[in-house]
Amino acid sequence: MAKAVLTPQAENFPAWYQDIVARAELAENGPARGSMVIRPWGYAIWELMQADMDRRIKATGAQNVAFPMLIPMSYLEKEKQHVEGFSPELAVVTHGGGQELTEPLVVRPTSETVINHYFSRWVQSHRDLPLMVNLWNNVVRWELRPRLFLRTTEFLWQEGHTVHATLEDAAEETRRMLEVYRRFMQESLAISVAVGEKSPGERFAGADHTFTCEALMRDGKALQMGTSHDMGHNFARAFDIHYLDASGERRHAATTSWGTSTRMIGGVIMVHGDDHGLCLPPTIAPHQVVVVQLGDEGEVAAAAGRLEAELRSAGVRAHVDARTHTSFGRRSVEWELKGVPVRIELGARELAAGTATLVRRDTRGKVGVPLDGAARAATGLLDEIQAALLARSRAFREEHTHPVTDMDEFTRRVGDGGLFLAAWSGTEESEKALGEGTGATIRCIVDAEPPAPTCLVTGLPARHTVLLGRAY
Amino acid sequence: MAKAVLTPQAENFPAWYQDIVARAELAENGPARGSMVIRPWGYAIWELMQADMDRRIKATGAQNVAFPMLIPMSYLEKEKQHVEGFSPELAVVTHGGGQELTEPLVVRPTSETVINHYFSRWVQSHRDLPLMVNLWNNVVRWELRPRLFLRTTEFLWQEGHTVHATLEDAAEETRRMLEVYRRFMQESLAISVAVGEKSPGERFAGADHTFTCEALMRDGKALQMGTSHDMGHNFARAFDIHYLDASGERRHAATTSWGTSTRMIGGVIMVHGDDHGLCLPPTIAPHQVVVVQLGDEGEVAAAAGRLEAELRSAGVRAHVDARTHTSFGRRSVEWELKGVPVRIELGARELAAGTATLVRRDTRGKVGVPLDGAARAATGLLDEIQAALLARSRAFREEHTHPVTDMDEFTRRVGDGGLFLAAWSGTEESEKALGEGTGATIRCIVDAEPPAPTCLVTGLPARHTVLLGRAY
Repeated sequence: MAKAVLTPQAENFPAWYQDIVARAELAENGPARGSMVIRPWGYAIWELMQADMDRRIKATGAQNVAFPMLIPMSYLEKEKQHVEGFSPELAVVTHGGGQELTEPLVVRPTSETVINHYFSRWVQSHRDLPLMVNLWNNVVRWELRPRLFLRTTEFLWQEGHTVHATLEDAAEETRRMLEVYRRFMQESLAISVAVGEKSPGERFAGADHTFTCEALMRDGKALQMGTSHDMGHNFARAFDIHYLDASGERRHAATTSWGTSTRMIGGVIMVHGDDHGLCLPPTIAPHQVVVVQLGDEGEVAAAAGRLEAELRSAGVRAHVDARTHTSFGRRSVEWELKGVPVRIELGARELAAGTATLVRRDTRGKVGVPLDGAARAATGLLDEIQAALLARSRAFREEHTHPVTDMDEFTRRVGDGGLFLAAWSGTEESEKALGEGTGATIRCIVDAEPPAPTCLVTGLPARHTVLLGRAY
Repeated sequence: MAKAVLTPQAENFPAWYQDIVARAELAENGPARGSMVIRPWGYAIWELMQADMDRRIKATGAQNVAFPMLIPMSYLEKEKQHVEGFSPELAVVTHGGGQELTEPLVVRPTSETVINHYFSRWVQSHRDLPLMVNLWNNVVRWELRPRLFLRTTEFLWQEGHTVHATLEDAAEETRRMLEVYRRFMQESLAISVAVGEKSPGERFAGADHTFTCEALMRDGKALQMGTSHDMGHNFARAFDIHYLDASGERRHAATTSWGTSTRMIGGVIMVHGDDHGLCLPPTIAPHQVVVVQLGDEGEVAAAAGRLEAELRSAGVRAHVDARTHTSFGRRSVEWELKGVPVRIELGARELAAGTATLVRRDTRGKVGVPLDGAARAATGLLDEIQAALLARSRAFREEHTHPVTDMDEFTRRVGDGGLFLAAWSGTEESEKALGEGTGATIRCIVDAEPPAPTCLVTGLPARHTVLLGRAY
């Protein structure tokens, strides 16, 4: 029965993805092309992700702020590479208050330009450094092939921006935030990611170095889940960010930026989901445990309420589904679709037997436990599920990462999905050549021995080991 | 010394306001006219307000969601009054992705139109009702006379939108949310507000009834702090929101919306602030207690750290100011400017005497307490300050609310500031006439006996008692 609800993954993965987004009531298309409405269940997941990420960001010393969404076009034009990179994606406000504007305003695609303008005013002395801010907001990048959560014209995200005294400090910050992201994805989203530097062709517009977290979806495609950029002196030069060092000398500061977005929700769907629906890691599940109340009897309702209270006092986000006018099967299917980690079935029969049935979402396994130990058992199960999802994600990524030493072999195998570990010479032409006919890109440069002494494409000496793959 | 930092309120209130926003590092002007940068201290206050308000909104059963920021112009045009009201304030995106758009997109000034479009799809049966959603986002309304926090082209807010089966249910929801707002302002912001219905001239574009919370600033001007709108059937008709009732009959739903914004921060500044700076109610103070460490001695630092830990374990947001390279006077002035409710001064002398000096921000009164009871004393002081600020706000509003029965008297006194209680006939002409030559508006219709049997302006029989005043 549950099978009929979603297109099976193996049959048509993109259709499965669309089905799950709709049927789990996560989101739908907005009125303007590429825009998105995030529904309560999807937004509650985002709020939990935000709260966790926000704690981690604040722990590094960054403070939250807000900057305007509308940026004068002239600000973008100050950093040449940056404006070249973003120009094709801009939404432009030309009229305001019934009049044509003398200077068009760009809806922020990211906020480097406006923030670095203010950094140049706020940073005077080495005592002002490091200056670290973070923003939770919305940005707009025109998308030609939109897909809910993965590529939307407007998306929600956090963008961090920092200023440092030295290039070394900026490099360190870029790495520190990459690690914050990696740990968040691992510990909170239960997603194992590969981390590394982007190749020049995939670098953020205006950055010296871009680092990325790359996850592997169950269809074998990669998803960039978060990036951290070392801007070096580029923006400091463009926006005139100077400071007086301890000896009174005037120096250029160095800057970074780093961001993660609602796109991560797409990653959670495609890493953990199956043919029965979403499968949420407990850390970001709006309901971690749903008590499915079977029957209207007063004592059943009371027992369900007690169990809910017990779970809540143990810090579990518990919810009683008392919609007894709706069939049990239908309700089970709904909570499976929505990815609730643990269901507890509780009716008169269970009450009489003094037991409860626990169903875990990841394995769909059922286990009967004594009713008076049900809350404890459910709590333990949540930890187990969180760990199991991460282990499965790590195993899947490792099993689907293949060393390749031959371009023909790579071209032949790339369509089966997965990540490919290859030796690369580092030249621009070879990066282009890798993509031709394969649809793949360099996902990142990784810290590993190259599988061959010479570049997969050019035969030149290998300078880097890279992960290759098709990506969202 | 502290006096020199801000223009005194009595000398020039608007200049005092500008000074305090800048010197307490709350916000500054953005690059585009009317836009705003919210700095860490200002944003931390907003986050505390958000968290508190969000809890209250969720407790009513509303769920958070996100809707697109860019709305097709045609959506706005569906509700005639609504588009007429908002047209002069719109920012319009005409270009996206390098091309001119076939239909211009409006940057949301508020989201009724797009949300009600989705409501019409989501609401089918009486079982779907009430449907209650809330959004935390940014909106743009072109402002001709911008002022930080009070009137900015872009501002941050929450907007709630609900659908109900009957007009009665919608009316009840409108009132419920007004009460949620009133209590939030009273309990969290320590601001006593007058509540009541807006007159037709001040109603939200498209609403049958608008209710408001009106606060009185220390310069005698009123500030609208939050509004709740009963849309009746207007939007349900325009957007075709129907449902099948229990007997299978097709009925129009009724809708509401309600919102509060970063404008409330302006209210906090102007209700509680004084010539020494901001004065924050403890509930929304990012640091509730600052321990000002005097001297670098190891034992002083250790004692400050212990006090901070003790305060934190009591649930207090405590912070040690260990910037001993900066003078004590300068640090005191800074925390006063930033409105921190309680300062504790702690140095070698205090340590030797086994005492600490507590300074409360509202009265600037100092009290010496035994060091080992300092945390408890500070915690108690926070409650006292919260209550004292509310009491002062209530007393100020009551003392500055004057019954008037004579138009000449009103015209003469209105420039002195304050609210005026008057009898009103309820006609459109009299609402206009009230404003002519007085600069005042009807802030709201209140539930009180009219001070005279006939209208202040027209001499017609009094139908309402209204609060009049000049406003931000």
